[in-house]
Amino acid sequence: MPWFQHTLTLPAMSRGFHLITSRVLEAAPEIRSLQAGLLHVFIQHTSASLTINENADPDVRVDLETSMNTIAPENFPYIHTIEGPDDMPAHVKTSLLGSSVSIPIRKGALALGVWQGICLCEHRNHAEGRKLVITIHGE
Amino acid sequence: MPWFQHTLTLPAMSRGFHLITSRVLEAAPEIRSLQAGLLHVFIQHTSASLTINENADPDVRVDLETSMNTIAPENFPYIHTIEGPDDMPAHVKTSLLGSSVSIPIRKGALALGVWQGICLCEHRNHAEGRKLVITIHGE
Amino acid sequence: MPWFQHTLTLPAMSRGFHLITSRVLEAAPEIRSLQAGLLHVFIQHTSASLTINENADPDVRVDLETSMNTIAPENFPYIHTIEGPDDMPAHVKTSLLGSSVSIPIRKGALALGVWQGICLCEHRNHAEGRKLVITIHGE
Repeated sequence: MPWFQHTLTLPAMSRGFHLITSRVLEAAPEIRSLQAGLLHVFIQHTSASLTINENADPDVRVDLETSMNTIAPENFPYIHTIEGPDDMPAHVKTSLLGSSVSIPIRKGALALGVWQGICLCEHRNHAEGRKLVITIHGE
Repeated sequence: MPWFQHTLTLPAMSRGFHLITSRVLEAAPEIRSLQAGLLHVFIQHTSASLTINENADPDVRVDLETSMNTIAPENFPYIHTIEGPDDMPAHVKTSLLGSSVSIPIRKGALALGVWQGICLCEHRNHAEGRKLVITIHGE
Repeated sequence: MPWFQHTLTLPAMSRGFHLITSRVLEAAPEIRSLQAGLLHVFIQHTSASLTINENADPDVRVDLETSMNTIAPENFPYIHTIEGPDDMPAHVKTSLLGSSVSIPIRKGALALGVWQGICLCEHRNHAEGRKLVITIHGE
């Protein structure tokens, strides 16, 4: 019942929701060797987050972005504004969406539903690549 | 330190928040055999979610539903609208609430607080039964 | 590959977001003995939550509080109001932010990003100390 751990630095992505399932799978080949277990993906930032959502129609990811912009708007009387209007909303969105996802491993694959994918949620306008820590444990 | 994994298909539920703690416990009897560990419950859908909240007054679950309907309203200029007005808000709510919960196991039981229960959050008006993957690991 | 589990009762804290990373580390010294693993922190309440966010500028934590007060406002037609106007918004915020965080352990330390800390999110005006269950597993 070993542990596997990897770091994965994603390329810089534009503000919005981006599917990264295939990138995570490439970085975590040990998933295929496990009959049961858990995959944990963690993002080491406070202005980008991870979520699981629709992997098909890209319109869903656009609507997720516009919805989150309304839930955590830029035109709000924030006091932490030094890095620009997209800074503090990014922190709010990160706490709402979360800094990690964990997904069951079953018979050598992720036990995702048919429509589920892992999304990087980039909340800044001009971010650099984001660092993930991937942890796998199972048998 | 074994792993246990189960799939649980819930019956179709009405839109809203529903306590499922007892159903999860029935599906995961191995919890009773563990002194320390974690229970992970994962939902394989993108228009329903899982959360932990009040297990007593059912009014809380009604207020959670009306609150989420205000946070992710149906009257918003979504572009993904093919499945009706409850479709895209369901995706937003799923990302806000999350696709999994994980709960400590201690001395053969879930280490939930007195008022905590596991809720299925059904965000669609007419959904079929939802599939969960339950993963248990401990010693 | 042992399991470690601790309960940690925090002192009563004021409504808002509070960094508790150092308190969690003090309560979980076994982190230092592990090369790879996961830390799971769970809060046993439904009116306070846990999140990971900025560990430096305290203004971020103030803005998180005011943002959450706008997303889950007190002046909403809740039906569960017996414990006062801060009661039901606390339940909504708890589900939005979540009842647990899990963080990778790597080389004897938490693999947090430079700016990340663990926050207790106290959503009630006059709460008692909150109970956490800390679970550590690794090798």
